[in-house]
Amino acid sequence: MKTHTISRNAWPSREESTDQALSDETLWRVDLWWRAANYLSVGQIYLLDNPLLREPLKPEHVKARLLGHWGTTPGLTFLYAHLNRAIAERSTNALYVTGPGHGGPGLVASCYLEGSYTETYPDITGDTEGIHRLFRQFSFPGGIPSHVAPETPGSIHEGGELGYALSHAYGAAFDNPDLLVFAVVGDGEAETGPLATSWHSNKFVNPHTDGVVLPVLHLNGYKIANPTVLARIPEDELAALMHGYGHKPHFFTGGFEDEDHANAHRRYAELLDVVLDEIAQIKADSAARDAAGQPQERPLWPMIVFRTPKGWTGPKEVDGKRTENSWRSHQVPLANARDTDEHLKNLEDWLRSYRPEELFDDDGALIAEITAANPPDALRMSTNPITNGGLVLRDLRMPDWRDYGVEVDGAMTEAPRILGNFLRDIITLNPDNFRIFGPDETASNRLQNVFEVTDKQWMAGYLPNDEGDAMARVGRVMEMLSEHQCQGWLEGYLLTGRHGLMNSYEAFIHLIDSMFNQHAKWLKVTNEIPWRRPIASLNYLLSSHVWRQDHNGFSHQDPGFIDHVVNKKADIVRVYLPPDTNTLLSTYDHVLRSKQYVNVVVAGKQPAPSFLSIDEALKHCTRGLGIWEWAGTEVAGESPDVVLGCAGDVPTLEAVSAAALLREHIPDLKVRLVNVVDLMRLQDEKEHPHGLSDREFDTIFTPDKPVVFAYHGYPWLIHRLTYRRTGHSNLHVRGYIEEGTTTTPFDMLMLNNLDRYHLVMDVIDRVPGLATRYAGLRQQMVDQRLEIRAYTRATGQDSPDVRAWVRPDAGETATVEGGPAMPQDTGGDNE
Amino acid sequence: MKTHTISRNAWPSREESTDQALSDETLWRVDLWWRAANYLSVGQIYLLDNPLLREPLKPEHVKARLLGHWGTTPGLTFLYAHLNRAIAERSTNALYVTGPGHGGPGLVASCYLEGSYTETYPDITGDTEGIHRLFRQFSFPGGIPSHVAPETPGSIHEGGELGYALSHAYGAAFDNPDLLVFAVVGDGEAETGPLATSWHSNKFVNPHTDGVVLPVLHLNGYKIANPTVLARIPEDELAALMHGYGHKPHFFTGGFEDEDHANAHRRYAELLDVVLDEIAQIKADSAARDAAGQPQERPLWPMIVFRTPKGWTGPKEVDGKRTENSWRSHQVPLANARDTDEHLKNLEDWLRSYRPEELFDDDGALIAEITAANPPDALRMSTNPITNGGLVLRDLRMPDWRDYGVEVDGAMTEAPRILGNFLRDIITLNPDNFRIFGPDETASNRLQNVFEVTDKQWMAGYLPNDEGDAMARVGRVMEMLSEHQCQGWLEGYLLTGRHGLMNSYEAFIHLIDSMFNQHAKWLKVTNEIPWRRPIASLNYLLSSHVWRQDHNGFSHQDPGFIDHVVNKKADIVRVYLPPDTNTLLSTYDHVLRSKQYVNVVVAGKQPAPSFLSIDEALKHCTRGLGIWEWAGTEVAGESPDVVLGCAGDVPTLEAVSAAALLREHIPDLKVRLVNVVDLMRLQDEKEHPHGLSDREFDTIFTPDKPVVFAYHGYPWLIHRLTYRRTGHSNLHVRGYIEEGTTTTPFDMLMLNNLDRYHLVMDVIDRVPGLATRYAGLRQQMVDQRLEIRAYTRATGQDSPDVRAWVRPDAGETATVEGGPAMPQDTGGDNE
Repeated sequence: MKTHTISRNAWPSREESTDQALSDETLWRVDLWWRAANYLSVGQIYLLDNPLLREPLKPEHVKARLLGHWGTTPGLTFLYAHLNRAIAERSTNALYVTGPGHGGPGLVASCYLEGSYTETYPDITGDTEGIHRLFRQFSFPGGIPSHVAPETPGSIHEGGELGYALSHAYGAAFDNPDLLVFAVVGDGEAETGPLATSWHSNKFVNPHTDGVVLPVLHLNGYKIANPTVLARIPEDELAALMHGYGHKPHFFTGGFEDEDHANAHRRYAELLDVVLDEIAQIKADSAARDAAGQPQERPLWPMIVFRTPKGWTGPKEVDGKRTENSWRSHQVPLANARDTDEHLKNLEDWLRSYRPEELFDDDGALIAEITAANPPDALRMSTNPITNGGLVLRDLRMPDWRDYGVEVDGAMTEAPRILGNFLRDIITLNPDNFRIFGPDETASNRLQNVFEVTDKQWMAGYLPNDEGDAMARVGRVMEMLSEHQCQGWLEGYLLTGRHGLMNSYEAFIHLIDSMFNQHAKWLKVTNEIPWRRPIASLNYLLSSHVWRQDHNGFSHQDPGFIDHVVNKKADIVRVYLPPDTNTLLSTYDHVLRSKQYVNVVVAGKQPAPSFLSIDEALKHCTRGLGIWEWAGTEVAGESPDVVLGCAGDVPTLEAVSAAALLREHIPDLKVRLVNVVDLMRLQDEKEHPHGLSDREFDTIFTPDKPVVFAYHGYPWLIHRLTYRRTGHSNLHVRGYIEEGTTTTPFDMLMLNNLDRYHLVMDVIDRVPGLATRYAGLRQQMVDQRLEIRAYTRATGQDSPDVRAWVRPDAGETATVEGGPAMPQDTGGDNE
Repeated sequence: MKTHTISRNAWPSREESTDQALSDETLWRVDLWWRAANYLSVGQIYLLDNPLLREPLKPEHVKARLLGHWGTTPGLTFLYAHLNRAIAERSTNALYVTGPGHGGPGLVASCYLEGSYTETYPDITGDTEGIHRLFRQFSFPGGIPSHVAPETPGSIHEGGELGYALSHAYGAAFDNPDLLVFAVVGDGEAETGPLATSWHSNKFVNPHTDGVVLPVLHLNGYKIANPTVLARIPEDELAALMHGYGHKPHFFTGGFEDEDHANAHRRYAELLDVVLDEIAQIKADSAARDAAGQPQERPLWPMIVFRTPKGWTGPKEVDGKRTENSWRSHQVPLANARDTDEHLKNLEDWLRSYRPEELFDDDGALIAEITAANPPDALRMSTNPITNGGLVLRDLRMPDWRDYGVEVDGAMTEAPRILGNFLRDIITLNPDNFRIFGPDETASNRLQNVFEVTDKQWMAGYLPNDEGDAMARVGRVMEMLSEHQCQGWLEGYLLTGRHGLMNSYEAFIHLIDSMFNQHAKWLKVTNEIPWRRPIASLNYLLSSHVWRQDHNGFSHQDPGFIDHVVNKKADIVRVYLPPDTNTLLSTYDHVLRSKQYVNVVVAGKQPAPSFLSIDEALKHCTRGLGIWEWAGTEVAGESPDVVLGCAGDVPTLEAVSAAALLREHIPDLKVRLVNVVDLMRLQDEKEHPHGLSDREFDTIFTPDKPVVFAYHGYPWLIHRLTYRRTGHSNLHVRGYIEEGTTTTPFDMLMLNNLDRYHLVMDVIDRVPGLATRYAGLRQQMVDQRLEIRAYTRATGQDSPDVRAWVRPDAGETATVEGGPAMPQDTGGDNE
């Protein structure tokens, strides 16, 4: 047998890697291991005491509250046992993704058998008392969850919400060319949309520069209460489906009609060897192609359809009802195990069927033949360092973002396009641990400058005229028209110790609301687990946002992802609304360096004015919010009459324009303009680590003056964030109130009363004494809005009266009153 | 030719339906119709004036701001034209679902050609001026959206967010046995998760009792900026994929290499006849099976792979870059049409290539040969009454919910199980227009009593031992493990004039956040369209909610769907938190009768006490909130010292228990208990039609007394809803603060400080004067919590000290202090 070192692209076939035949001895050890794993799984679900059944089972040995999932567990342990045999023989660098994550006891048991559980949690010792504690803690208050979870060594995938096993697996495989990701997909999970499309991930994986995902469709036939669809279609349809997904399916059916376990072991072991040899051949071919300078080709990757009974080896019947091979095995087959003598006997018979006396010695330690069935320590899947991504995380090499900044000279820039320059050079500096993910929109979202140094990775077919379309067999940009897929890939990539970002339309990022939830929960829990090391943050760039979907219309307008995000724990989520190009650069510099957060960055892609110089942007972003003195009309040392708050690029332009109008028309009004880039600064410091103290908040927003706040999203979020502030009742927020249609950018603002003219009206209405004195000005604003609307309805365009505002000191091209015309969005590269 | 009446189950083959051969004359008319549709589509995108090119094209004839999507349009119109030919020949009752919904101009053009556009919008007349207005309004401020939208006659599907074409199509087909739903799936959309799994809908459609969905995969090869995956896999893989999805694929490739249009027309028309004949045969077979009393079988339904160039018939090149058959055709191929003479000429040549002079007469009316290519008026897809679902909606026949109510006698009931009785009888009374949808959880969510009268509809394979599992070839319950699929089916079912509800886990309903957005937007827009008739509300039942996911753990805990929902327009969304069985019955009676809403109903499934009698529940639900005098210790005519507010079943139990503890320990404290069942009552009446006036709010909650509010979800939502209320700063809310793990139900409450003991502590802390006087009581509460936690950690169970509270007048079984023990959730039927 070869030495067990992990080497890049070491993909030996079985013949090359070992001279051992698949002996009965080997398979006996696999079976021992499997029996032990199953025993330990059932024990976790049921036993409070008497863990090794050294005395007859009594009711008080059984947990009062039985929780957990048995159904999928024996299949998971069977696959794990066999994979361990192959890993040892081939020195494979592997990890195990458990799609049916509710099979938690099986994975915990596997870790325990590998010794890694005891290494990670020293109180769970390798003896009877350790097993006692292992059983007791499972699904028990103060113990561990019933699912595969962050607490489970070797896991990168919480299976509580189904659908992402393959996306996570491929995310782990990208840029890990010697890695085998063994991904078990439950046949329930397989019915979800995200999983159904994630099979197509194989069109994006490069056989030479990326790792291998080996999907196993665990066809055990039943969900909670129903059969599964894929278990009830003819085998030719299932084979066709897998072929259609780009796979060569290998079918294994075992465990039915009391098949002898030895027979099932031999058949599966032989099949696994065939499959792994096929993978070795694919890898060898790809290496040869690379050596010969030939382009890589997409192979038909093998996959396994693993059809075994749900609840295999469990009770065949309970109370006369079929249980093994039925949905009744899904969770706890003997739900009332201590209620009757018969149930208790059922449970004891079941546990004893694994012959625990053969598995553990007198002290409760595993017998040597079982531990011999483990791979060498360095190859254990449960201790693969990439499954604790922070261990292998390398900080990004970052150029100085200030080198990419723009002058504040009245010119209009597309902020993400400039960010693209910064990202381009980050890609160059970090060629193998940074990727950009997005659903077909990286160019549309204006990051196209990254294509100067990289391409979109694409392993489906090419046509001659694809040239110039930035597609290649290797590339740092991953695009498929599935937000679920992109998010899942990115999560898998981050969880295995790399960096990345996702760009998407703001409205449609809601598609992954629930995936965000699960990732945020994962981060929250790992923050509480000392051995879990911090991973890179999950960064969003939402640059096709609500205010510039005027051409796409109502269906594309929704700024509520921010609202969704801020429901999660304050130490996990960050929301940034950089108002211009330099602040976007500074923000992204920050978020790409951060760890253990979800950073939501919303920054429009349309040409827009710059407000802050590079140095100002740095200071402003460091503070998270600040007074823009040059925009307001404050008198030093005096309290302002009104505060104009703003957050978001478009609202900021309106607020500074409103301030300019006020300066022109009500010169003696003391206006303070406050821009907020880090939204969490608005919250109480007791609620969020970024929160301002009440004193700071009052200093900036005043405790008693009217605040008219122009906000990017739904206005009530600002109220929610500030409801404890002293001056809260003086706060008047404008934002998106779900009024939209196909129209022009400025008309969109007017529909939602967020335009500069309406903000001026709001100030007049709110500052005591102005309403009467400036009734004429107010009417002028009303008329101006009507005129603009009439112009828009007549021409289809925004009125030339609507100008971009630029700083008075910004150069000669612009004045406060005029400024450059607002560019019209042609929508030319939007969906 | 046969008469054009729509008859149920009229599925003639072509030979039976017509004696006309597929003549050149017929195909010439189809081509004329297609050319007209394409001309009208291009005109909508580009032309502001000179609509019929009766003079040379000048820059001022072209819109300044070019918006819309050309790429998918010619394919959509081609398919529409041919389908019309077949509809006329076969008298088919059909509708058209446009997956690539951004192809809006094509569908608007088709409606115009059918005359239905002018019937619906009389100002868009059938002459030159009408066409002028038709062109101008498209994607124009004050006009119509660029997508297929509610404004488009015949549409039930907004294609802004991709992925739901097939789910919607099948939803329309259920219980419409004579309906053909022609569902075009874009190859971009086909990459989304929801679409990828929705192909499996054919395992749930009954060939005899449901209609037919004919999917057409519109393989035009490109998305916004990339090729599509399915266009770049070998044809054998694509054929296998479709076979694997349960379809018999028919491939059509046309329009490449300058194929003669006449040739393409003939080839496609022949293929469509073959496909429709196959469908007719399937229908005939199913009728024969039905007549013979044989069970229905799932056929391999035909589908069409329609491979044509993106932007077919558009400019081949623009500025030397390939445009037809490229992603550059996706949106507006000549984005700068009026900038140069060359571009203008390109556009004019393109428009003239359709030979408009042959299509319209001198007045701009369509020539007779084109209108002759339409089906008879009654068969036009754009006027099919089911596409304006309110037209065909029949109110549900409802039994009196009060007949299902329970006594308030101290017994514990599972509210959804009682609701199941009500739903069971609604199913009996409404056998063909009411369905229940859910992802494998209808029984888990405790609605299993409906299975006394119906089954889960299942057309995949059966096994002998399925007996007793409530599966059948017809049934009112639709279960697939995909929230997307269930939601999409339900939307399609509602939009075509039927009723239904969706049950799901509260945490995972976030999976369809974005689908909810789109449906809510659809409802908002249709409220503003006079000819769109109100449809039945979309009703959710979330009975596996955050507070009873203690056994599943943190991943299953998220009450934020409510927060997401209330961002939408107030006249669309309703949120109900019935606290017990009778209030759930009353609530569901109400929501099932309502129209044009999304009703979110959260009500736990675990055994729980009843608080209100049938009559009280009716009154309480009618008011939406109210004071429970029997729970508090108010003195008539005096203001209370403190208000205990509550919303949600679990928080209500805690609040009434806290009130009982206060009565016992601080008998002179005047406590008012207010329960909120209709959450929108908390909002300002200016914000929501259900909102209380400030006067009413102050009367109930007092303007100045402390309010301790026990809320089901994230606490800040209550602040957001009430931030304008007088006494807002006195409001102290307890709710879910994202603290959870695998534990017991009561421990979950303690983790989030929502338990009765903490509420008592909150009252002591908030009511002036209590802190010192009742320091001992407060410490007692602290100790009680510690004791309970210790018990839980030791036993894995909730302490017997934690009792359900029941009304003092509820019977002899219980007292306020004790009451029945809280049932322990075994999790036995949860995921």
